[in-house]
Amino acid sequence: MAQKPSIPKGTRDFGPAEMAGRNYIFDTIRSVFKKYGFNPLETPSMENLSTLLGKYGDEGDKLLFKILNSGDAFANVQPEMLGNSNALSLKVCEKGLRYDLTVPFARYVVQHQNELVFPFKRYQIQPVWRADRPQKGRYREFYQCDVDVIGSKSLINELELVQIVDEVFANFGINVCIKINNRKVLSGLSEIIGHPDKLIDITVAIDKIDKIGLDAVKAELRERGIDEAGINIIEPVLLLEGTSQEKIAKMKEILAASEVGMKGLEELEVLFGYISAAGIRQEVEIDLSLARGLNYYTGAIFEVKAKDFAIGSICGGGRYDDLTGIFGLPNMSGVGISFGADRIYDVLQGLDKFPKDAIRGTKVLFSNMGDNEVLYSLPIVAQLRAHGINSEIYPDNTKLKKQFDYATKKAIPYFAIVGEQEIESGVVNIKNLETGEQTQLKKDELAGFLS
Amino acid sequence: MAQKPSIPKGTRDFGPAEMAGRNYIFDTIRSVFKKYGFNPLETPSMENLSTLLGKYGDEGDKLLFKILNSGDAFANVQPEMLGNSNALSLKVCEKGLRYDLTVPFARYVVQHQNELVFPFKRYQIQPVWRADRPQKGRYREFYQCDVDVIGSKSLINELELVQIVDEVFANFGINVCIKINNRKVLSGLSEIIGHPDKLIDITVAIDKIDKIGLDAVKAELRERGIDEAGINIIEPVLLLEGTSQEKIAKMKEILAASEVGMKGLEELEVLFGYISAAGIRQEVEIDLSLARGLNYYTGAIFEVKAKDFAIGSICGGGRYDDLTGIFGLPNMSGVGISFGADRIYDVLQGLDKFPKDAIRGTKVLFSNMGDNEVLYSLPIVAQLRAHGINSEIYPDNTKLKKQFDYATKKAIPYFAIVGEQEIESGVVNIKNLETGEQTQLKKDELAGFLS
Repeated sequence: MAQKPSIPKGTRDFGPAEMAGRNYIFDTIRSVFKKYGFNPLETPSMENLSTLLGKYGDEGDKLLFKILNSGDAFANVQPEMLGNSNALSLKVCEKGLRYDLTVPFARYVVQHQNELVFPFKRYQIQPVWRADRPQKGRYREFYQCDVDVIGSKSLINELELVQIVDEVFANFGINVCIKINNRKVLSGLSEIIGHPDKLIDITVAIDKIDKIGLDAVKAELRERGIDEAGINIIEPVLLLEGTSQEKIAKMKEILAASEVGMKGLEELEVLFGYISAAGIRQEVEIDLSLARGLNYYTGAIFEVKAKDFAIGSICGGGRYDDLTGIFGLPNMSGVGISFGADRIYDVLQGLDKFPKDAIRGTKVLFSNMGDNEVLYSLPIVAQLRAHGINSEIYPDNTKLKKQFDYATKKAIPYFAIVGEQEIESGVVNIKNLETGEQTQLKKDELAGFLS
Repeated sequence: MAQKPSIPKGTRDFGPAEMAGRNYIFDTIRSVFKKYGFNPLETPSMENLSTLLGKYGDEGDKLLFKILNSGDAFANVQPEMLGNSNALSLKVCEKGLRYDLTVPFARYVVQHQNELVFPFKRYQIQPVWRADRPQKGRYREFYQCDVDVIGSKSLINELELVQIVDEVFANFGINVCIKINNRKVLSGLSEIIGHPDKLIDITVAIDKIDKIGLDAVKAELRERGIDEAGINIIEPVLLLEGTSQEKIAKMKEILAASEVGMKGLEELEVLFGYISAAGIRQEVEIDLSLARGLNYYTGAIFEVKAKDFAIGSICGGGRYDDLTGIFGLPNMSGVGISFGADRIYDVLQGLDKFPKDAIRGTKVLFSNMGDNEVLYSLPIVAQLRAHGINSEIYPDNTKLKKQFDYATKKAIPYFAIVGEQEIESGVVNIKNLETGEQTQLKKDELAGFLS
């Protein structure tokens, strides 16, 4: 009996059209990563649950996909265990699907620390899985695209990530704004307002300014126990205008009494010095409201927004000082950034920026009007392919109309007609399906014509 | 407390060196697939268990990795259910990891039949998972690399797969032998020996000839109930020598009385006619002992072996007539072939055929002797990258020895030394780390020198 086929909620098939766009995105990003000396890494889809658990908070633990042990998973399960679902799932599952690329990266670095060359520069483009409730734009399987360097505190690493972002989006033809902040500046700010204990509260609140606006942020700060004096210091920081130099100068006045705050500003100053020496095409600005939710950032924080298309951030990252400590290798500072492939896809499509050539498949389809015609066409097609021209012969000898339709639906721009007459004259009749124009060419002129 | 990090048995991390080789393999294969008009497809890692179960035999069902339902998976499990492990695992798991790319492809074709253009030509390069016992060369997660065309009975499709194999291995610089048989010929043979019911027995036995030799195959045929008269017909078929034409001519005598057998020979004849018209560089031969284990092939059967490296088959496939029937779309004939990426990797490495350029990462490392030197180097490095030259600056101002070591370990061929003197003279000192040769170049000569 036939089953009605479907796929699990929150997962997706990527057909030829989506794949062409996605491959264009990944190929572009990958080639820029390589240009900056980053090398690829792939880790297994499954990690031991002990590697994953406790790394993403209680909420994250619940969102892990767990894999049933193979063999007789329930052999040692006793009836009285049924009451405790969490404990039971750990008893019958030892492995889980990776939740992000950061924890597997940290695990890899610690496990292979003696073989690696530090600073270790890697990129990783692989799917991750989260048992989140599926909704528009949120999937249970999606690709992450991370680039990190670990084992170096130099701000040149931060610069390189900015350059990579700059070059990737220049290649895509997308105008972006690269926003930069420094976690130490936020720490300094919380010191200055007399609440070094409330750093997380402050960052969580001000991170929302783009979504909820200044007044709501102020209300939240109040709720989280910041007094009016503190809010009066924070407010002008969030509203700071001017060049990066001007912002830094102004902040130096505000944070003068905070050592960590001044250190953060000094880092920003050095980084912006590098940025101006290296030459960046896209807009780069200091955004002191930028905090990002993650608690493990300790230095620079990055976020990238598309300027001409309304969508959340399409890139984000920062510097962390102790990613690998949990696996037994402390004090390895690193910095990384992650590209949001799904959102970049939406931006490219929304702005019609996918380059036709990059996502085009076959360039020419040869007609099939019988065996003689096919035998005549085969060496011609072989020659075109030898010239790197993607070519097909329609495999079945059916009505030409059907063959035309195939070319049209596959967006193949040229249709090569080969019948008895063409064989006799040693030519091929080639029709441009976009303009309707038809040209008769000798066999050996074809590669030149189609190149 | 630090955990000692490890990964699940049978899975692998692919570090920079392996990834460079693997990407070279996938990129090469992918570019050939595209040249023949095949488009990419990706399906979700998880499929509904109902899609997967019953498609790979009882043995295969046991090797599926099942994913625990999210939320409270055990909510409805009663103590009395604990006795039946299989039933229980289905109650708490609705999804499984894909076991191959063929069933998801069939599911995709049926599910999207109204949007697709037929014949539908797709390739798919994705990992699959099997809960097999791990051993040398057998993994629980590995990539498959499949190319199929579905919705056409034309033998031009078979030709294209042969051409693809030919071109892929020519690009790799690996000499291969492409072995071809036809399932209908084997059906004819079982008819001729009076045992049409024993087609599976015969194919299972003769498929082993490479591994166990002729005598053991004959013994197995006897065990499986083939009499001496039958074996006397089969034996010379297995020993057949000569050109493809000669083999076909000889087989026509043997199978003259079998309609299906003669149809199979006719298909081989047409295919070899196409092959000689199209021009194939690699060795192609008819191998009548080739059966392949799978029961769903109905026409052509392919297998590819490396000629200069002892390893099992590195490619295999064939024509099937009813792949999609189980999902409700009968009579869709198709043909496909699968490339074994892990084995191809071993062959390329064993024969030292990985091209240095293709797997090379960074071309030049700039020294870091302080902030002034870095600020001088940044625009030079930016220019090199603009010329497509993979370049790095060592991020930290440490001993030159350490920077040299980094370049050596990363197999970076050039080291660019920039100190005070170089800045004063507006030059860069560039050292070829393979030859030891040192050259002083003006800033704008560098891109030309390194290209």
